[in-house]
Amino acid sequence: MRAEIITVGTELLLGQTLDRHSQYLSQECSPLGIGVYYHTSVGDNRQRLLEVIQLASSRSELIFLCGGLGPTMDDLTKETLAEYLDVRLIQDPETVTHLEKLFVGRTIATNNFKQTYVFPDGVVFTNQNGTAPGLSVKSKGVTYICLPGPPNELVPMFETSIRPFLLQLLPEKQVIDSHTLSFFGIGESLLEERLNDIIENQTNPTIAPYAKEAGVTLRITAKAKDKTTAHAMVQPTLSAIMERVGEYCFSEKEESLEEVVISFLKQQQRTLSVVESCTGGLLAHMVTSVPGSSEVFKGGIVSYTNEVKNQIAQVPLDVLQQHGAVSSWTAESLATQTLKQFQTDLSLSITGVAGPDPSEGKPVGLVYIGLAEKGQPSRVYQFQFKGSRRRIQLLAAKYALFILQQCLKKGETTT
Amino acid sequence: MRAEIITVGTELLLGQTLDRHSQYLSQECSPLGIGVYYHTSVGDNRQRLLEVIQLASSRSELIFLCGGLGPTMDDLTKETLAEYLDVRLIQDPETVTHLEKLFVGRTIATNNFKQTYVFPDGVVFTNQNGTAPGLSVKSKGVTYICLPGPPNELVPMFETSIRPFLLQLLPEKQVIDSHTLSFFGIGESLLEERLNDIIENQTNPTIAPYAKEAGVTLRITAKAKDKTTAHAMVQPTLSAIMERVGEYCFSEKEESLEEVVISFLKQQQRTLSVVESCTGGLLAHMVTSVPGSSEVFKGGIVSYTNEVKNQIAQVPLDVLQQHGAVSSWTAESLATQTLKQFQTDLSLSITGVAGPDPSEGKPVGLVYIGLAEKGQPSRVYQFQFKGSRRRIQLLAAKYALFILQQCLKKGETTT
Repeated sequence: MRAEIITVGTELLLGQTLDRHSQYLSQECSPLGIGVYYHTSVGDNRQRLLEVIQLASSRSELIFLCGGLGPTMDDLTKETLAEYLDVRLIQDPETVTHLEKLFVGRTIATNNFKQTYVFPDGVVFTNQNGTAPGLSVKSKGVTYICLPGPPNELVPMFETSIRPFLLQLLPEKQVIDSHTLSFFGIGESLLEERLNDIIENQTNPTIAPYAKEAGVTLRITAKAKDKTTAHAMVQPTLSAIMERVGEYCFSEKEESLEEVVISFLKQQQRTLSVVESCTGGLLAHMVTSVPGSSEVFKGGIVSYTNEVKNQIAQVPLDVLQQHGAVSSWTAESLATQTLKQFQTDLSLSITGVAGPDPSEGKPVGLVYIGLAEKGQPSRVYQFQFKGSRRRIQLLAAKYALFILQQCLKKGETTT
Repeated sequence: MRAEIITVGTELLLGQTLDRHSQYLSQECSPLGIGVYYHTSVGDNRQRLLEVIQLASSRSELIFLCGGLGPTMDDLTKETLAEYLDVRLIQDPETVTHLEKLFVGRTIATNNFKQTYVFPDGVVFTNQNGTAPGLSVKSKGVTYICLPGPPNELVPMFETSIRPFLLQLLPEKQVIDSHTLSFFGIGESLLEERLNDIIENQTNPTIAPYAKEAGVTLRITAKAKDKTTAHAMVQPTLSAIMERVGEYCFSEKEESLEEVVISFLKQQQRTLSVVESCTGGLLAHMVTSVPGSSEVFKGGIVSYTNEVKNQIAQVPLDVLQQHGAVSSWTAESLATQTLKQFQTDLSLSITGVAGPDPSEGKPVGLVYIGLAEKGQPSRVYQFQFKGSRRRIQLLAAKYALFILQQCLKKGETTT
C-alpha cells in the first residue's frame, strides 16, 4: 500500500515547530508493510493545501493529514478535504456529547463546535486527550486519515485507534523482517564498494547503508507473507555480508560501541577504568551514557596537563620528559598506572593532539590509545586522525572502544 | 522570494532519520524575508525525485535540496537535478584537490570522485567538514541549492557560505542585523510569557525564541537599508528584554555555557578542575570541547564508585558512610579535595542519581553540585531534575557550568 503524509501548519514552514509526526507515522507504517513515499508540509492556506491534496490523491492510496483540526479559522484541513471530495460535513452527535463532557461546568466557545463536524460515511476516532476527533473517509480508492496536530493527542490516538484501523485496511498480509549490522573502522563508501554486487542485485531483501557520526550501519530488510519466510530470506544475504566485511562488524543489532562493550564486560564480569587526555572526558562520558554501566565501570581520570598526568595519573616524570605527553610510552604508562590505581581488570588510555594547534611539535590528529589488561602485556595503538577538534576527539574515543571491543570479543585472555 | 525545501533520503521515509534540516533552513530563511511555502521529503528514487523537482520548479524561485550528495549509488540528488535541467556535470579541480587533502595518506575510493562533479556555470561551496561540496545553479529564473545531508556539514556550510550567498540573491538590497541572547535556567514558555507583549507587538525587529537542548536563545532581527539603521533598530528591544529576564542571560552572543566559562577563566587567569560522579565525564567533556580550554582546565576525576571517591578523589570514608555518595557533604568534599589535589583556583563537583534506578534509596534526578574556590567557603546546590538518564546528566553538567558562570561573572572574589 502506497502512502504519504501531509502535515499542515504555517508554524512548520516558519521553522517554529519541528515536524516529528512524519517520522513517527513512517516508523509505524513501515512494519505494517505500508510504504510511505512522500512527506509534505504545507501552511494554513486553503489553495495550497487543496493542491497538495489533489497531487497526493493522484499518486497514493493512503493519505495522512496531520494538524489543522483545531477550532480556529486558520484550521482548515477537513474543510479543504471536504471541498476537494465535494462532500458536506455533518455534525456528529457523539462528538458533541464528548465535547460537552470535556467542558462540563465551563462554557463551550462557539468555534469549538466546528470540531464536531465529520465526513458523511466516514469513521470518527475519539480524541481522549483533546477536542478534535480523528477522521477517516474513503473516496475513489483513496483512504484519508485526518489526525489532530498536538503530539499528545496524535500519538495516543494512533496507538489506540489508527493502528488497528490500518491493519483492517491491508489488502494482503505482508510482514517485514529487518536486521541491522553495525560497523566501525570502515567508511560508508568503502563498505559499499566491497558489497557492490550484493547490494545491486538485491530487491528482496533490500540492503541499505547508513552513515552514522562514527561508523556505518547496514539494514537488510525482507518482505514476505509471514515472519518465518521473511526471516529465512534475510539469512543468505547476512552470511554473504559477514563473510566479506565481518571483521568490521561490532554488532548484529543497531547498538553503539559503548553498549556492546558494557554488555561484554558484564558477561565476563570484568571492570574498566579510563584515563584520557585529548578526549577530555568524552570516553568516560560515552561509557557512562549506557544505563547500568556502574556495574563494571569504576571511573577515570582526565589528565589535561603534564602535572596531572604525573601527580594524579602517576606517569613517571622521566617518561613525560623523555618522550612527551603524546607518545606511546605515556599512553602505556597511563593505562598501566590507572589499571593499578583503580584496581580494574582493564584500562583504556588516550593521549593525543585534538587541535586546533599542534602540541609538543606533534601534529594535530596524532593520537595514541593504550590498553592495559590484568596479567597481560599492555598494548598501544597509534592513529593519525583528520578533521575538526570535535571529530578527532570523537574518533579517538570510538577507536578506544573498538579496540576494547575487539579484545573482549576475542576473549584473548582468561578472566 | 518564494522558496521550498526538499529533503532526499529513504531513511526519512522509513522514519529512521528525523528531518531537522527543513526546520533549520526555514528558521534561517524567515529573517531574510524569504518565504518558505513547502517542505517535501522524497526517497532515493530517481523518478520520484525528478517529479518533485519538476513540481517545485513550477512554483518556487528558490529550491533547497538536502541530502543525496554522498559517494554511493543511491545518492542521486545532483545527478537527477542535472537530468531535469538537461546539463552535464563537470569535474571541479578545486574539489578534487580538497578531496585529496582530506584523504592524504589514505586511498580515495573510486566512488568518492563522484563528489567532485559540479554544475557548469554553477557555484561550489567548499565543505569544511566532509567530502561533498554544496552546489548552486540557476536556470529559468529558479535558483537551486544542493546541500550535504549530515547536519555537521550542512549547518556550518549554511553559516559560512549559504547565508551570504542568499543575501546577494535578494532582489532589494536589504541588510539584516541580528542579535542572539543565550539564556539558561528559564524555560522557553516562561521566557515567552514574560516577553509576550514585546514579542507580539514587534514586526521589525522580530523576536524569535529557539529552545536548545539545554537553555533557550532569543534572536532579535531588524531589517533596514543599511547596517547602522538596522543596528539602531535592535537596541531598544534588546534593552527591554534584558530588563525583564537579564538575570537568566549568560551571553549576548550565540555561544555555549562552556565557551563563556572558558573565556571568563582566561580573562581572570584562573584554573579549573572537575570531579564528577553521575555525569560520568560529561562535564569535563563539555569543558574540553572548547578549543584552548587547556590553558585553564587542568583535568578531573570520574568517580563512579565509592572506592574511587575515597581512594582517588580523597573523600573521607566517614563522609561517604554517614551521608552517602549522593549528599551535599560528599559534593562539598569532592570539590574541596579536588581543588587541593589538582591545585586549581576553582573546582566543580557533581554527585547524583542519573537513573534509570534509584541509588542509596535516593530518587532518580537528585543531584548535588559543589563549587570550591581558593580562599573562599565552598558552596553546594541541590537539584531535583526530571527526565531520562541522558537529560539528567545533561542538566546536571549544564547547571554546574551555569553556577560557575554566575560566580565568575559576579567576580565575587578577588583572583
